[in-house]
Amino acid sequence: MVKKAADRKQLELVNAQQGQGTVYPLVVLEGDEFTGAGRLFNVITFPPKTSIGYHQHVGETETYLILSGEGMYNDNGTLVPVQAGDVTYCANGESHSIENTGDGDLVIVAVILFDKTKA
Amino acid sequence: MVKKAADRKQLELVNAQQGQGTVYPLVVLEGDEFTGAGRLFNVITFPPKTSIGYHQHVGETETYLILSGEGMYNDNGTLVPVQAGDVTYCANGESHSIENTGDGDLVIVAVILFDKTKA
Repeated sequence: MVKKAADRKQLELVNAQQGQGTVYPLVVLEGDEFTGAGRLFNVITFPPKTSIGYHQHVGETETYLILSGEGMYNDNGTLVPVQAGDVTYCANGESHSIENTGDGDLVIVAVILFDKTKA
Repeated sequence: MVKKAADRKQLELVNAQQGQGTVYPLVVLEGDEFTGAGRLFNVITFPPKTSIGYHQHVGETETYLILSGEGMYNDNGTLVPVQAGDVTYCANGESHSIENTGDGDLVIVAVILFDKTKA
């Protein structure tokens, strides 16, 4: 199956996880396409000054791949500046947040996979 | 955990799946980071005229997210041109290939997830 760019589902998240402003997920996979391995695979665009607030992942991991822009990532309590090519990994039980600290959009790939190694 | 861009593992695949030339995966996740949910999450750069050959996925799915460039995707027997923003999905049991048909690099995100819905 091929999903052309113009046909992909565009979402809006307002104050995601008590974050600032509105961010825009463009869906890569959804529903049964995950075959039980995960629940989120999106490209998310953060306009300037927007963020996803600090939150914990339990029973799953979340990976961000930074495609463009500049952000500040909270890595389970430690602030780390991030930019294109950087990868962040929130392990099962850890917490994270990310905010756009640049003048342009921050664009990331976000993937949530279930932890199949624990009951 | 944050992996800075310069510290990510760079691989080379020569004639991948009997494809043409050398393609360059830059690792996003590896090993235990998948927590049993999958086995590949890379950004792959295809120089002009390179490809990954036609191959089948059994017990797993593979998703390509096209980041830049122009390619030809073989979707289980049907050729589909792809470009930035397009998403391809190879379901469990299906086959696919992708080649760079443009003048510049073709860059994609590739993710292989296990099919947890079947024995």
